Amino acid sequence: MSVRTLPSGEPRPRYDQERLLLVAVDVFTERGYDGTSMDQLSHASGLSKSSLYHHIDGKEHLLRMALERALDPLLAVLEEPEATTGRAIDRLHHVITREVQVLTECLPFVTLLLRVRGNTETERWALDRRREFDHRVTTLVEEAVVEGDIRADVDAATTTRLVFGLVNSLIEWYRPDGGLTPDDLAAQITSLIFTGLHTTPSGAA
Amino acid sequence: MSVRTLPSGEPRPRYDQERLLLVAVDVFTERGYDGTSMDQLSHASGLSKSSLYHHIDGKEHLLRMALERALDPLLAVLEEPEATTGRAIDRLHHVITREVQVLTECLPFVTLLLRVRGNTETERWALDRRREFDHRVTTLVEEAVVEGDIRADVDAATTTRLVFGLVNSLIEWYRPDGGLTPDDLAAQITSLIFTGLHTTPSGAA
Repeated sequence: MSVRTLPSGEPRPRYDQERLLLVAVDVFTERGYDGTSMDQLSHASGLSKSSLYHHIDGKEHLLRMALERALDPLLAVLEEPEATTGRAIDRLHHVITREVQVLTECLPFVTLLLRVRGNTETERWALDRRREFDHRVTTLVEEAVVEGDIRADVDAATTTRLVFGLVNSLIEWYRPDGGLTPDDLAAQITSLIFTGLHTTPSGAA
Repeated sequence: MSVRTLPSGEPRPRYDQERLLLVAVDVFTERGYDGTSMDQLSHASGLSKSSLYHHIDGKEHLLRMALERALDPLLAVLEEPEATTGRAIDRLHHVITREVQVLTECLPFVTLLLRVRGNTETERWALDRRREFDHRVTTLVEEAVVEGDIRADVDAATTTRLVFGLVNSLIEWYRPDGGLTPDDLAAQITSLIFTGLHTTPSGAA
């Protein structure tokens, strides 16, 4: 990828802000948000501290922007037509498939999101949005039980936690250049979740 | 739980070492191993630094003891009779059930284990043992495919990662006093993994 070069001294606001965000998400994930100083962000990004403050109000502003890069697309999935109309089981299938895709596309941002523990206002805001997400998916599981497509002995809240525990665990090992496409991965995950590992009860060879 | 009291001034080696380990696992998990100093461990445990060195060789020794508290029981499951004899699918079912139990019993230690990133010799040793575990479970999945009990279209290595991604995600939300017993939890997890969420293909009401 070629980098835009501009006449010396001219500001490159969008490029610098994007680079800053990509650097910050790595540093926050590596050192923890609390353990990261503006000096470290300045050093890691190659931008002076005054230049940093030209782009952002402060460290927490940067954290919020980074977390929005994960939360906005994750929550947007729930608004897609395939997630809002039709049988609940099909909507759930769509949501899981698309969340796997978003997660693989926004890997560093989702990784940061999943490490957030709620020590600051921005972190608590992010946890609230994650809870909202879980709540909406739990409702979807409950609807699929009512519609007879998911086993009635399943506890919807625990199931939602387990399903997204599985999906979110991708951040620990999935690498985009590892030979497994997001679509293949999503297909393996939905197959495991909906039909399980067992061969059919009638028994395979 | 009552705490053993001993005549003033007398050393309480086993009690102190156990307390130190429990404090260390929390501090390491909270601050990260790299971010924790012996001074902080001294402060958090209420033991003087000279007393700390009476019990342990240093910080890495403490990390190793803490990680053994997770790794030893997790790997011991693979040696249990139900994990070594019989059909592979039954052995796999036993391993998953028991790992859920170990994880809930050793929650702080497993939490630390799952956060270890490989920056020190001890951390790399722990990651090697985790890889050994994954490898042995992958073999079990492959055997169950050969025996016709697991669907042949399943990729064994990816499946093992997904299954333990799901199991390990318990550390994020499971609390022993939360009303869900380890046995109930293990049953929900194995049901999800082996038979999936769908009602049977013939269709329920």
